[in-house]
Amino acid sequence: MNFNISKPNNELKEQLQNKIDLKTKPIGSLGVLEKLAVKIGCIQNTLSPELKQPTIMVFAADHGIALDGVSPYPQEVTWQMVANFLSGGAAINVFGRQNGIDIRIIDAGVNFDFDKSSGVINAKVDYGTKSYLNEPAMTAEQFKTAIKRGADLCDKMHREGSNIIGFGEMGIGNTSSAAILLHILAGVDLKECVGRGTGWDDEGLKKKYEILKNAVANYNGDNYVENILTHFGGFEIVMIAGAMLKAAELKMVILVDGFIISSALLAASKINSDVLEYCIFTHKSNENGHKHMLQHLKAEPILDLGMRLGEGTGAAVAYPIIESSVNFLNQMASFEDAGVSNSDQISQA
Amino acid sequence: MNFNISKPNNELKEQLQNKIDLKTKPIGSLGVLEKLAVKIGCIQNTLSPELKQPTIMVFAADHGIALDGVSPYPQEVTWQMVANFLSGGAAINVFGRQNGIDIRIIDAGVNFDFDKSSGVINAKVDYGTKSYLNEPAMTAEQFKTAIKRGADLCDKMHREGSNIIGFGEMGIGNTSSAAILLHILAGVDLKECVGRGTGWDDEGLKKKYEILKNAVANYNGDNYVENILTHFGGFEIVMIAGAMLKAAELKMVILVDGFIISSALLAASKINSDVLEYCIFTHKSNENGHKHMLQHLKAEPILDLGMRLGEGTGAAVAYPIIESSVNFLNQMASFEDAGVSNSDQISQA
Repeated sequence: MNFNISKPNNELKEQLQNKIDLKTKPIGSLGVLEKLAVKIGCIQNTLSPELKQPTIMVFAADHGIALDGVSPYPQEVTWQMVANFLSGGAAINVFGRQNGIDIRIIDAGVNFDFDKSSGVINAKVDYGTKSYLNEPAMTAEQFKTAIKRGADLCDKMHREGSNIIGFGEMGIGNTSSAAILLHILAGVDLKECVGRGTGWDDEGLKKKYEILKNAVANYNGDNYVENILTHFGGFEIVMIAGAMLKAAELKMVILVDGFIISSALLAASKINSDVLEYCIFTHKSNENGHKHMLQHLKAEPILDLGMRLGEGTGAAVAYPIIESSVNFLNQMASFEDAGVSNSDQISQA
Repeated sequence: MNFNISKPNNELKEQLQNKIDLKTKPIGSLGVLEKLAVKIGCIQNTLSPELKQPTIMVFAADHGIALDGVSPYPQEVTWQMVANFLSGGAAINVFGRQNGIDIRIIDAGVNFDFDKSSGVINAKVDYGTKSYLNEPAMTAEQFKTAIKRGADLCDKMHREGSNIIGFGEMGIGNTSSAAILLHILAGVDLKECVGRGTGWDDEGLKKKYEILKNAVANYNGDNYVENILTHFGGFEIVMIAGAMLKAAELKMVILVDGFIISSALLAASKINSDVLEYCIFTHKSNENGHKHMLQHLKAEPILDLGMRLGEGTGAAVAYPIIESSVNFLNQMASFEDAGVSNSDQISQA
């Protein structure tokens, strides 16, 4: 699948900064909010950007590797948590409601049949991946299906009116996929990539590392990102990568959450690096590998709150700050409007 | 004026953490949000805290020291910016509107007569302080008046239904007062306390430092915090200190903004250190002295966005994150409610 991504109109940067500098405040005093406003203006190609129908798509899938013991939680927690999302009781629901974000739940490949009336978006590729300890997690055909379904769902959100989209995930065992992707695609030592996930103690962490070390040693494929994703990916990770590439093609603002979502972005960026220009990094996760991910992507996240819950919660909690950046750009008075003396005028006087 | 501050009910910490640990998420995975939820629960003495009528009181006043050249902006900017607040065009108005925060503007001592119909709350002590280069900024009587007016205004907000209150400020020259308070009350080297304020270049910064060094050298009073505030304070800073002490007495949650507001809190904490237990530090300002202030107060701010605008904008931008902490505590399902398997149950099985 090809994605036709053009860069944001970065030539607007200077005009946007000029508009900001005429606002009734000391130059540069809104810090990161100013950078966000400039970035969003360039993406939307306007001096007056607008955030429309913010949406977080939560992709859920099961992972064969989970059955090999990489997580302290049993695989059934994936579908149980999806049911929790659908009934509105999870963290992502709470933060979405608070901040006016539409939360969509997608079955990318959960080992469970959800009722049609549950509200889940059915994009199931299979009932979970195979364990990549000894064989590829998915077939080449499944990989293509997942990329395309992710892209199509993002396109649907865009047609329904959204121009800013975040991604969340649920899948017992998916920090393992993310760790391996970081290791192979960014060349970070595997030990640094493997973290506690949903809550391993030291012994569990060591066991997880040994399993993943074996999985990597057993891989005899090439270094094409598509093949690496096919071997080590999860259906939700691949779908998110496809959705991100489509979002960039559609010039949507992309909200990047924590470790898993960044691993999907890392993979997407190896397919087309221009996707990164559409991204806002919402938070630094407390999962160990995420700091390496952020370094590799040269990302400066908005929040650092020691969160590591997943589901897209970092993006949801950070969203009002992104709103603030657009709002000050559109709503603040200029020195001239407000009749306030400017230090520039004074020094010229 | 005496303040009767009792400590929050910190015995609730364990019960609050237990309630949090039963939520459908990995233990500890909401990081700082969990700490905030526990803190607010203890302050309000309940497992189900509520934030009612969030309010930011913006105190404005003029400073005699401004006429000695500590700021690149002329003194008239104070009243011009107050007019901007009153017509809704300033940053604090934008963020207040966005996040449902009531913004109140108080004339604590601006060198200007505002129209009664403007909406300003008139608590004017005088038309600005005197320059503390050679004499006290205010009289002992004015100090008492300012503390009391701040406390009374906070009491009024509480009676009107607010249980969470932030403070903002406007006053050309007030980073100078804050710098000296930090220097004297926390023992930090003056050079480290003096920053660029609204935007000094290197030369201006040096001039500001020389003026403040002289002001400190010329002080021959004692080390009582009340006397230091009387000599070096601004009317807005003293009023905010009074309001904070009252807020703690009333068991309100106190949102602490940047450098100036922290200097008022530093002073208030020297009057009664229990005030600190009611404080949430909303952001780390880019003004140099603020990092020392935060260290001295052992504070871990929520945001670090390179902001240094004042007006209470850090508190206003951070507010939704504080809301998120209360919302997850009240609204998230427990493992039992949602029928989700818990890793504890598994390891016990």
